[in-house]
Amino acid sequence: MNDARLDFDRYDHVRPILWTGEALQLLDQRRLPFVVEHVACADSDAVARAIRDLAVRGAPAIGIAAAWGVVLAARGVEAADGPAALAQLEPALQRLNAARPTAVNLAWALARMRRGLAGAGADWRQRLEREAQAIADEDLAANRRMDMLGAALIAPGSGVLTHCNTGSLATAGFGTALGVIRAGVAQGRIARVYAGETRPWLQGARLTVWELQQDGIPATLIADSAAAHLMKTGAVQWVVVGADRICANGDTANKIGTYQLAIAARHHGLKFMVVAPSSTVDLDTPDGEAIEIEQRDPGELFGVGGVRTVAEGIAAWNPVFDVTPAGLIDAIVTEKGVVGQPTAEKMRAAFGG
Amino acid sequence: MNDARLDFDRYDHVRPILWTGEALQLLDQRRLPFVVEHVACADSDAVARAIRDLAVRGAPAIGIAAAWGVVLAARGVEAADGPAALAQLEPALQRLNAARPTAVNLAWALARMRRGLAGAGADWRQRLEREAQAIADEDLAANRRMDMLGAALIAPGSGVLTHCNTGSLATAGFGTALGVIRAGVAQGRIARVYAGETRPWLQGARLTVWELQQDGIPATLIADSAAAHLMKTGAVQWVVVGADRICANGDTANKIGTYQLAIAARHHGLKFMVVAPSSTVDLDTPDGEAIEIEQRDPGELFGVGGVRTVAEGIAAWNPVFDVTPAGLIDAIVTEKGVVGQPTAEKMRAAFGG
Repeated sequence: MNDARLDFDRYDHVRPILWTGEALQLLDQRRLPFVVEHVACADSDAVARAIRDLAVRGAPAIGIAAAWGVVLAARGVEAADGPAALAQLEPALQRLNAARPTAVNLAWALARMRRGLAGAGADWRQRLEREAQAIADEDLAANRRMDMLGAALIAPGSGVLTHCNTGSLATAGFGTALGVIRAGVAQGRIARVYAGETRPWLQGARLTVWELQQDGIPATLIADSAAAHLMKTGAVQWVVVGADRICANGDTANKIGTYQLAIAARHHGLKFMVVAPSSTVDLDTPDGEAIEIEQRDPGELFGVGGVRTVAEGIAAWNPVFDVTPAGLIDAIVTEKGVVGQPTAEKMRAAFGG
Repeated sequence: MNDARLDFDRYDHVRPILWTGEALQLLDQRRLPFVVEHVACADSDAVARAIRDLAVRGAPAIGIAAAWGVVLAARGVEAADGPAALAQLEPALQRLNAARPTAVNLAWALARMRRGLAGAGADWRQRLEREAQAIADEDLAANRRMDMLGAALIAPGSGVLTHCNTGSLATAGFGTALGVIRAGVAQGRIARVYAGETRPWLQGARLTVWELQQDGIPATLIADSAAAHLMKTGAVQWVVVGADRICANGDTANKIGTYQLAIAARHHGLKFMVVAPSSTVDLDTPDGEAIEIEQRDPGELFGVGGVRTVAEGIAAWNPVFDVTPAGLIDAIVTEKGVVGQPTAEKMRAAFGG
């Protein structure tokens, strides 16, 4: 096992976000795995729509897409310097920011674009494009670093269970939790990979097992509700998930169902790892109580792929995220290092503020 | 609140199993909620097929259907007395018994039919039919009794979460866990009903909310993975489920996902109730380790309603039951009474053996 080196490109064949210099090409995640097709976004409202409608999804990926959305919005702007451009771009920035509420990376990327503009002179347009490219490049680099750190926590021969999709599809590449799994498999640490199907949108069933298949990594799909029974069999030693927002005290918002997995993991004495870039850490949100949980259309529970399975006139409750309290998390892994058994003190020490 | 009386018929509009005297009519649960249609079974192999293919499902219901299957098998038999008939019926009994492995009610009903035959003389054919009718009638009566006992445990104004379908569709009528919910709603004890969709077969989404809708009881559908988040909001005080087999020590096999709900309920300090007729109690199975867990076709996870959602070449693990240990159960409710905090000693005292 050689943890120091890994041929990342060998384990990473999917690219969800392509900037052509003219337009933003987004791999349409609503149509995977059967149709592999990019949608072209020619303006920032098209990007906001793609984020809202889940053509692009995954906390880091929507931050990157939004950054390119700002570049597109700047096309129609004439301004002498950054601050003047920023004033004109404000409505577009706000529309992008409102596309989805829970993941902090969206607001984080837009704030970074704003700061870049605020300090820019006549070259503000180039500065904006460089900033968006930097957000994407840094995300990929962060993933590769945190994925090695996360994999190093896993004992050889382990089984892991993951939830939702946190791979290349959700990031600039390689992935967060799924990147740890890629690295862990490449290093012989991970012998078995299980993925929950992740109702209602089926990110696990449609995206995660397909993405791993592209890399030749076999994974076994399970119903979300089979996770505790799987844990009881001894097949998995770690649950590894991503994050949409990590609070100042380590509480973590992630895809609905994550909290349930953390409870079951603790019940079985298994380990629970959260993997996310430090841009997902939000020291301004003190704890999970302060996170707005996005409620999506109840209709997402009424069927799959256009086939209705539920009678008319039924009510549904469809929160698409939940909060896992820090006390159920064994390790938060970012590109800055590993925070074990997170607390507010340890988070402050690791992420400043 | 008047616990002693309840107009059961007002809260029970669905009948899954009809014996016409000529054939067995089974409400085809694969086609609900959009097509309400009975399939006619003219011989016992048709009944075995209906059980295996889930046209009829639910532990008590498959026991009742199998009993009528024996009556149908007897059509072609000429014998002087019960024991002679039994010898000829043995192959059909075995095919019915093999239709599904986990629920004990199937084997229990067939054993009861066998005993009836073994003691019968020339009137063995009438005896067989009376026995099948008694199994159905006693199931309905047991449900009505246990449902009042279970409802009485629930404090007024409570919210409950249920899993799978345990209603009239799963029994001779009124239901087990869903019967407790019907009785609890009628008595004003239950103010909110939540149903998990119950992947992969969606019994909750397709059957439970529809069945409650027939009775005018509003229920809210949730993704199975949203249960812990729901519990955290304080909306539910009880998880109420059925059972496919209850062991001598109180360990309970039920639909996959039940175990996860029990763990989450305990984590949140909520109560967990199992409701089943005493025919579901199997004192010959010492504990959960001894239960055969049925694995169904992995293809059940590859799509919904004929729409494929998962790429080709993916592996899946599809256990359709799990075991909730007695230690996570607050009450086992049968028509014989309530066993609180079940142990082997209390189970033996309640159910003999």
